[in-house]
Amino acid sequence: MKPLSFSLDLKLPLPSPDDKRADVERLSETAAIEDIHVPLELMRALPTVLREKNFAIKPVFGITGPCTRLLEIDSEQVFGIAIDIGTTNIVASLFDLKSLKKISEKSMTNPQTVYGDDILSRMHFAMSRGAEELQRAVIGGLNSIITSLADDAKIKTPELFAVTVASNTAMTHLLLGLDVSNIPVEPYIPVVHSPDFLKAGELDLAANPEAVVYAFPNAGSYVGGDIISGILSLGIHKAEAPTVLIDVGTNAEIVVGMKDWLFVGAGAAGPALEGGIFNAGMRAQPGAIYRIDIDPVTHGVRYKTIGDAQPAGICGSGVIDLIAELFEKGIIDSMGRFRETAGVIRTENGPLFVVVRTERATIEVSEREINNFLRSKAAMFTSLHVLLKSLGLGFRDIDRFYIAGALGSGVRVRKAIGIGMLPDIPVEKYIPANNSSLSGAELLLTNGELYREVEKIRSMITYREMNTDTEFMKEFPDALFLPHLNPDILTNG
Amino acid sequence: MKPLSFSLDLKLPLPSPDDKRADVERLSETAAIEDIHVPLELMRALPTVLREKNFAIKPVFGITGPCTRLLEIDSEQVFGIAIDIGTTNIVASLFDLKSLKKISEKSMTNPQTVYGDDILSRMHFAMSRGAEELQRAVIGGLNSIITSLADDAKIKTPELFAVTVASNTAMTHLLLGLDVSNIPVEPYIPVVHSPDFLKAGELDLAANPEAVVYAFPNAGSYVGGDIISGILSLGIHKAEAPTVLIDVGTNAEIVVGMKDWLFVGAGAAGPALEGGIFNAGMRAQPGAIYRIDIDPVTHGVRYKTIGDAQPAGICGSGVIDLIAELFEKGIIDSMGRFRETAGVIRTENGPLFVVVRTERATIEVSEREINNFLRSKAAMFTSLHVLLKSLGLGFRDIDRFYIAGALGSGVRVRKAIGIGMLPDIPVEKYIPANNSSLSGAELLLTNGELYREVEKIRSMITYREMNTDTEFMKEFPDALFLPHLNPDILTNG
Repeated sequence: MKPLSFSLDLKLPLPSPDDKRADVERLSETAAIEDIHVPLELMRALPTVLREKNFAIKPVFGITGPCTRLLEIDSEQVFGIAIDIGTTNIVASLFDLKSLKKISEKSMTNPQTVYGDDILSRMHFAMSRGAEELQRAVIGGLNSIITSLADDAKIKTPELFAVTVASNTAMTHLLLGLDVSNIPVEPYIPVVHSPDFLKAGELDLAANPEAVVYAFPNAGSYVGGDIISGILSLGIHKAEAPTVLIDVGTNAEIVVGMKDWLFVGAGAAGPALEGGIFNAGMRAQPGAIYRIDIDPVTHGVRYKTIGDAQPAGICGSGVIDLIAELFEKGIIDSMGRFRETAGVIRTENGPLFVVVRTERATIEVSEREINNFLRSKAAMFTSLHVLLKSLGLGFRDIDRFYIAGALGSGVRVRKAIGIGMLPDIPVEKYIPANNSSLSGAELLLTNGELYREVEKIRSMITYREMNTDTEFMKEFPDALFLPHLNPDILTNG
Repeated sequence: MKPLSFSLDLKLPLPSPDDKRADVERLSETAAIEDIHVPLELMRALPTVLREKNFAIKPVFGITGPCTRLLEIDSEQVFGIAIDIGTTNIVASLFDLKSLKKISEKSMTNPQTVYGDDILSRMHFAMSRGAEELQRAVIGGLNSIITSLADDAKIKTPELFAVTVASNTAMTHLLLGLDVSNIPVEPYIPVVHSPDFLKAGELDLAANPEAVVYAFPNAGSYVGGDIISGILSLGIHKAEAPTVLIDVGTNAEIVVGMKDWLFVGAGAAGPALEGGIFNAGMRAQPGAIYRIDIDPVTHGVRYKTIGDAQPAGICGSGVIDLIAELFEKGIIDSMGRFRETAGVIRTENGPLFVVVRTERATIEVSEREINNFLRSKAAMFTSLHVLLKSLGLGFRDIDRFYIAGALGSGVRVRKAIGIGMLPDIPVEKYIPANNSSLSGAELLLTNGELYREVEKIRSMITYREMNTDTEFMKEFPDALFLPHLNPDILTNG
């Protein structure tokens, strides 16, 4: 197993009248690597370095498809960076590619958010004003997180020889400065599926200019490299039985697959759980309410916040808890309307339920917000059901059910089942997948030949557009009910 | 058969809800080319060009080893340049790579000659003052010949998508800006044998910056790409019987080979026939005497000049004619010393024979000059004989005998045999090879996949250093005689 960029410890045979091989071939034959490409600049430096080091060197090579590229003639250290670029958040981790150990991880807000919270508004910005500004923004962000990781570890950025990036299709295009104008319009055509291996210098990334940059390929405008990276990290393409991966954001993305086939269904899921649904919505950060219980009699609220901080908002798992508790305790009915009961406040703008009110924040929920949530949960559930049904599968056929994202680690699965968001299958089948996209990027960083497996995954994927599916449109309205207009479907669907 | 850079006339299927392939993959799949590399800059331009042209384009691709590179998205014309860079002379030809027709050819003096007539003095210049100046000189020369060829044919240099270059090892290194300091010193190590496929932009060549540049590989410091190119063009590596190729310059380079094996012998041959031997020596240009007959009685000289111009000097084939006639007509003895006979003039500096004396030029020959020549012819003949003998072959085993360079087309083989320069085999076995090095570069330009065959040739070659060979040193003195101290060897050796 070779990392994407790897070094060798070589003692080249010394030139002699019986061994007149040229420096480059002496190096590649000693390294026993076929099809090595040596950039002209390194060819120019090679004779001097070889002789200064008496032909004992530690060259760094990069896997770049069928060919291997010489990245540096002699380096003691080889580090690499894996990155997940989310629409909102960038997460990067630093690896020592000699020991294959993860050194550290950092995250930051995607600097592109100033051009719009969602990817669609950023694409529109790029279409009217050019993609350069958005490219500079994301690269600036990457460079600040990379240099921060490197500084903390006392590493110089020229010692970074590999960068892997997983992100959705539009984000990868913006990173590479590619035209996004055909992505959001019918028939949704990206510029490229597999962007090939690039050099850090081509993108002005804070790394060795020769460093290999691998951007995960996409399988279409709505099946990004982040999903493919997730499939790789979870091994869904090698599973022995049907496996599901869901990632609920602005788009509900659902992967169903196993070793012989992979289907990805996607469609606008309505507003994101963590942002768009609730005025008080926030990401899973300190101060976010992630756990809610409501007293069955008094309807008083007990909650927990991340870091036990003062409550500042409510994150995805908190939203699910809240809706489930409101429904279980009879505060809302199966259509998400407030009943006249303790804890419900009448206002000019309609009824409200107050979760908590402090000097700093008021966290409450309206019928409009509940309705937003119901649209999201209905879209997700229906997409999954319709996709499985089209494959001749039911919920009982699912062997493992991965829940990606911040939601995965925090959600109480029984609550999500109770409101019909997730199917009613044994809870032990549900597995949090955390940041499976970053995990896939890390996996490829430490095992470069996996790019072949990634291409296999890409070619295995069949995409299903769910929004325009007639079955979806037929079933969606029933799923707006709590838990469902036809609850039997939750178990037997 | 595909040229090194080739265009296709493609109508890509239009994107549709049933065909959502990305632009890059739509292009490569329609072109039916595996492992296409699309540079980032072209990826950025692709969506716009495709849609402007309604998906009907003429993309240009370059063969760059196992991978194929996209060079231009849409171009009506595809031209290429083949170049032979000699130490003294640069010859280049322009090809239309769509029709595979040669358009024109030009030659010029290598601008590096101001840094020294021979390659060794240029290497010393590079070693003391850096290689950049010599690189700039040769690239300046190439660019002036390329733009001149392009201008005459009314072609824009960005329409040049391929350049092939054959030259000796040191010259190729100087062209690429590589360190030559280990080439002229034991054990004679080049930086690289196969420099891989480069881009014109990397070398600042006057062509499309993405154009594929292929420099023929070398098989050592004294077996250059020019020899390998010559072997390719003459098909020696595929011959059914032993074949010889000689190229007599500053170094006597001798190839002996056939389909299963290739031997190259080289060694300093003494001064070049066309330059260093005679004060009146010159290259085969208008005014050069190339044919000489001496009256057996009066010793009066009849000569012919190239272009029937006023005599300005004497070229290689003229030198051979002159020595042969002087020897045949008894004007010099078998040791190259002048006899006391008509036409021989005694001077303070020793005897002379005057070929022609006009108002503009005096063309004469001294014993010192004859001695220079005898050293060259002895080195060449002995190298050939010793190399063949070491392979268990004699002259009668030679099936074809190619004579490369300007010498090949002008020389009277019977005269060269008469002075023991060439072995006494049937004259019809001698074939002029002209500029076999340029021919090989042209062949590869028009049939790019031949790079695989070139690598095969390179790996087949075994190099024999002749100067230090004990057999060579034993036989060399005998070959200084006219025709040879042991004339039997000329026929039966």
